[in-house]
Amino acid sequence: MENPPEAVTALSCEKETSLSAAMQAYFAKCDEKLGMVPNVLKAYAFNTEKLEAFVAFYNDLMLGASNLSKLDRELIAVAVSSVNRCYYCLTAHGAAVRQLSGDPALGEQMVMNYRAAALEPAQRAMIDFAVLVTEDPARIVEADRQRLRDCGFSDRDIWDIAAVAAFFNMTNRMASATDMRPNPEYHSLAR
Amino acid sequence: MENPPEAVTALSCEKETSLSAAMQAYFAKCDEKLGMVPNVLKAYAFNTEKLEAFVAFYNDLMLGASNLSKLDRELIAVAVSSVNRCYYCLTAHGAAVRQLSGDPALGEQMVMNYRAAALEPAQRAMIDFAVLVTEDPARIVEADRQRLRDCGFSDRDIWDIAAVAAFFNMTNRMASATDMRPNPEYHSLAR
Amino acid sequence: MENPPEAVTALSCEKETSLSAAMQAYFAKCDEKLGMVPNVLKAYAFNTEKLEAFVAFYNDLMLGASNLSKLDRELIAVAVSSVNRCYYCLTAHGAAVRQLSGDPALGEQMVMNYRAAALEPAQRAMIDFAVLVTEDPARIVEADRQRLRDCGFSDRDIWDIAAVAAFFNMTNRMASATDMRPNPEYHSLAR
Amino acid sequence: MENPPEAVTALSCEKETSLSAAMQAYFAKCDEKLGMVPNVLKAYAFNTEKLEAFVAFYNDLMLGASNLSKLDRELIAVAVSSVNRCYYCLTAHGAAVRQLSGDPALGEQMVMNYRAAALEPAQRAMIDFAVLVTEDPARIVEADRQRLRDCGFSDRDIWDIAAVAAFFNMTNRMASATDMRPNPEYHSLAR
Amino acid sequence: MENPPEAVTALSCEKETSLSAAMQAYFAKCDEKLGMVPNVLKAYAFNTEKLEAFVAFYNDLMLGASNLSKLDRELIAVAVSSVNRCYYCLTAHGAAVRQLSGDPALGEQMVMNYRAAALEPAQRAMIDFAVLVTEDPARIVEADRQRLRDCGFSDRDIWDIAAVAAFFNMTNRMASATDMRPNPEYHSLAR
Amino acid sequence: MENPPEAVTALSCEKETSLSAAMQAYFAKCDEKLGMVPNVLKAYAFNTEKLEAFVAFYNDLMLGASNLSKLDRELIAVAVSSVNRCYYCLTAHGAAVRQLSGDPALGEQMVMNYRAAALEPAQRAMIDFAVLVTEDPARIVEADRQRLRDCGFSDRDIWDIAAVAAFFNMTNRMASATDMRPNPEYHSLAR
Repeated sequence: MENPPEAVTALSCEKETSLSAAMQAYFAKCDEKLGMVPNVLKAYAFNTEKLEAFVAFYNDLMLGASNLSKLDRELIAVAVSSVNRCYYCLTAHGAAVRQLSGDPALGEQMVMNYRAAALEPAQRAMIDFAVLVTEDPARIVEADRQRLRDCGFSDRDIWDIAAVAAFFNMTNRMASATDMRPNPEYHSLAR
Repeated sequence: MENPPEAVTALSCEKETSLSAAMQAYFAKCDEKLGMVPNVLKAYAFNTEKLEAFVAFYNDLMLGASNLSKLDRELIAVAVSSVNRCYYCLTAHGAAVRQLSGDPALGEQMVMNYRAAALEPAQRAMIDFAVLVTEDPARIVEADRQRLRDCGFSDRDIWDIAAVAAFFNMTNRMASATDMRPNPEYHSLAR
Repeated sequence: MENPPEAVTALSCEKETSLSAAMQAYFAKCDEKLGMVPNVLKAYAFNTEKLEAFVAFYNDLMLGASNLSKLDRELIAVAVSSVNRCYYCLTAHGAAVRQLSGDPALGEQMVMNYRAAALEPAQRAMIDFAVLVTEDPARIVEADRQRLRDCGFSDRDIWDIAAVAAFFNMTNRMASATDMRPNPEYHSLAR
Repeated sequence: MENPPEAVTALSCEKETSLSAAMQAYFAKCDEKLGMVPNVLKAYAFNTEKLEAFVAFYNDLMLGASNLSKLDRELIAVAVSSVNRCYYCLTAHGAAVRQLSGDPALGEQMVMNYRAAALEPAQRAMIDFAVLVTEDPARIVEADRQRLRDCGFSDRDIWDIAAVAAFFNMTNRMASATDMRPNPEYHSLAR
Repeated sequence: MENPPEAVTALSCEKETSLSAAMQAYFAKCDEKLGMVPNVLKAYAFNTEKLEAFVAFYNDLMLGASNLSKLDRELIAVAVSSVNRCYYCLTAHGAAVRQLSGDPALGEQMVMNYRAAALEPAQRAMIDFAVLVTEDPARIVEADRQRLRDCGFSDRDIWDIAAVAAFFNMTNRMASATDMRPNPEYHSLAR
Repeated sequence: MENPPEAVTALSCEKETSLSAAMQAYFAKCDEKLGMVPNVLKAYAFNTEKLEAFVAFYNDLMLGASNLSKLDRELIAVAVSSVNRCYYCLTAHGAAVRQLSGDPALGEQMVMNYRAAALEPAQRAMIDFAVLVTEDPARIVEADRQRLRDCGFSDRDIWDIAAVAAFFNMTNRMASATDMRPNPEYHSLAR
């Protein structure tokens, strides 16, 4: 832990803007629903435009219309973050898997090694693809996409799997590059 | 080239929404200024909300206020895309480096191996960090950030370097996962 | 989870011997002190000689006289198991770190990425060496040992760090090769 | 060679105990049968309990009842040590392969690249599994175990293959971490 | 660019011999046909025997009798150089692919990621083998050679594919080790 | 051993030319001096021009004028071949190290892990550079060359180190791609 206990990241970015009304409302809603404002949002809050762009992008991906359930998207988030060993995202999204699945061991398995989890074959193929996207995107070929179609995924589903996997490859790196620290509340959630 | 000549990606995502007025205007502006609508925008256009979220995020990062010049951001884009061997992003952003720098060989060097480019020491440190963020984010420690501060970068600059590097780790993976094809116009630009 | 719910590993090894009196007593003691017999012991129990050799080796390393505290040894165990992504050992020894340290977040950090943990410099050097022993033993040179001496470790301490790190490189592989499953009780311990 | 000519490792661990009678007898037996006491035993001898635990574990694995022949176990030892590039174990167990097989070239092939050796298909599958256990234990799945069953190996045989492979992943790391030096006699044995 | 603008490599090797008549004629022919003497030849020219040996070896491989077309050999050269990220060879042989194929985009694709190129199945198998030879020669087995035979390649063709791939693994390393700089004329050739 | 006992490689390349008089004389000289014709020469002999180009290149590098002793060049050959795990070259050049050094253990150490060998600091730097050239040529920077100069190597010496290391990266791949088998005589040479 290289940044002081109160800090959200290792970087001191001066406040450049005040929070827009929309972002103030969003923070209030987080506080009400989660009992906290996730530190990633506080990290982006030095510039309300950056925060809004991040929130819009995140909410479309993780909460927008998709055939992938919210749990599916969180499983992808944790599998990707495990490859990248991202402390922030494993903590926050590991908690989300525990909550959404009601299965604390599943959250642990996804953090530690998803191959230990009792995933359905289609879910397993989805996670295998997300991990391939993470580890070796340059080697992806049509056969990799076809494997997902053969499990019943549509092309739009493949878009969504790729988009969530790609997104966490961004946030994992942003969190690691800035030493972003998760809210301590996550550790005991849904154990 | 696994998708048919006209296709922008290997995925057939049905049109879910019509383009918002804002996005129609944006496409027209691209056409006017670049002589084309970049294929990445066409790829997201099946859903105008996804497109808007992507465009807002992209434009804040690559065109928004920052001490990093536009060329600096494009250098990071190409260095990251070279590690990930992303055909789409190397083609589009390699062209941007050639244009913004007026130095075609620099664009080639960044695509092939940035260690062959005659970068200033601070630029080199910036690219080294972007490549570390790409290759091994889990090993980043405070000393890596300090190296940038020692070259004169502020913490806000480090945020921007990390954010651009992280973003292209997302788009590289989205492009590779969907076999996104660059507009052919890029190849001959600014040679 | 590829083995049936009751199974301890994916291998069906027929019982070859009955438990020796010493091992019966040891199992009883585990049950009394931990409320369970760790599954790794049940896995070896098909042959009481193999079990005894394993228990003797393990207890000497993890409980025998050493300048390394029991927590130090568990920190090494988890850091090594994290590199190897061993579900069994991360679960069992992650719980041990939580218990011995009284700091549940520390257990999580060691599982996810030890670089996120607030370790003392000497502890950090100890874990760095254990991770080097795990990842790239062929590249170890005298300077790596000297780095530990410079932090105040004696040659006997270095032996112990190496021995614990090496041991978990064995057990991680035994657990992964046999799909060994941790006792479910570990997940909620000391949260 | 970083330790003085007489030293067995780069660590100076003070003698903590005298050799137990059992271990004295064991050393005498080694001397009689091999013409030397293997240096690994001398390395552990600073503490007779550690030595006894190591000897018991080693002898059960390498000499105990198993369907794997002693040569099979030595082939695994060398293949694992080759991946880990362990000078001590390649020297000592390479000699054992030469002796037990009566085929000096086979010993060399296992040291250099086991894919050059004329192994029977079942032996080759056994070594492939041992190498997988060494290189990438986190990716082992049921199909990898099944491949061995399809070659005629029982679940107990798979346990033994895994156990020998896992053990040399420990000793390779112990030898590399301590710069353990092989007895010079090994080099010319069974050439 | 670590060497001064006029230098061909980062090494200052004193002229040891004058150019043989044969090599003088060869340089004149290069100048006439290419409008330049490739820098690799100037680099070797400090010793005319080394230059002659290199030229003879190169010309046999790249211009000698073979079922592989000159374009095939250049495709292999670029694919290998892309794995090794060799700035010199990617620049010089990327230009050759653009010229011989009349398809500038193909040259770019081979530089960036050959999996993006629309290769015929047999060509793709040829390049896959050349990349395997480059990345992981120790794992090549008979099945890898058979895959080429199944695409219609003769054993002599396989020799040639291997020989060209192996050769560029040499020249890539020679160029990188000496920081060899390509003639600037290559950048704009056949765009 | 995938090719029949008599075969030199796994490829059947029809004889295309008869041996030139020069090559006949060279084979006779090998037979006289070594008691065998090295199999690599027999492998190239299907085409006497290819053989001559190879022999000229090889003899210039390994026997030509250089400040590097013949043993130095063989040490580089074996260190490179060890990284690439090339059975042919490790066997043939491991024997050469044993012969030229009069130290059989040194030959073994270079095959197994050169870090175990008692090399002089300058020799160690030479081998470290050769291994870097082999493992990661794209990351070589001026500081790597300077390290050699600081040990007393001239720029011409660096050329030679690079050239020998690069050459064995070619021949290792040629041998592995064709499953080239070493003459059995090498195994017992100079033990």
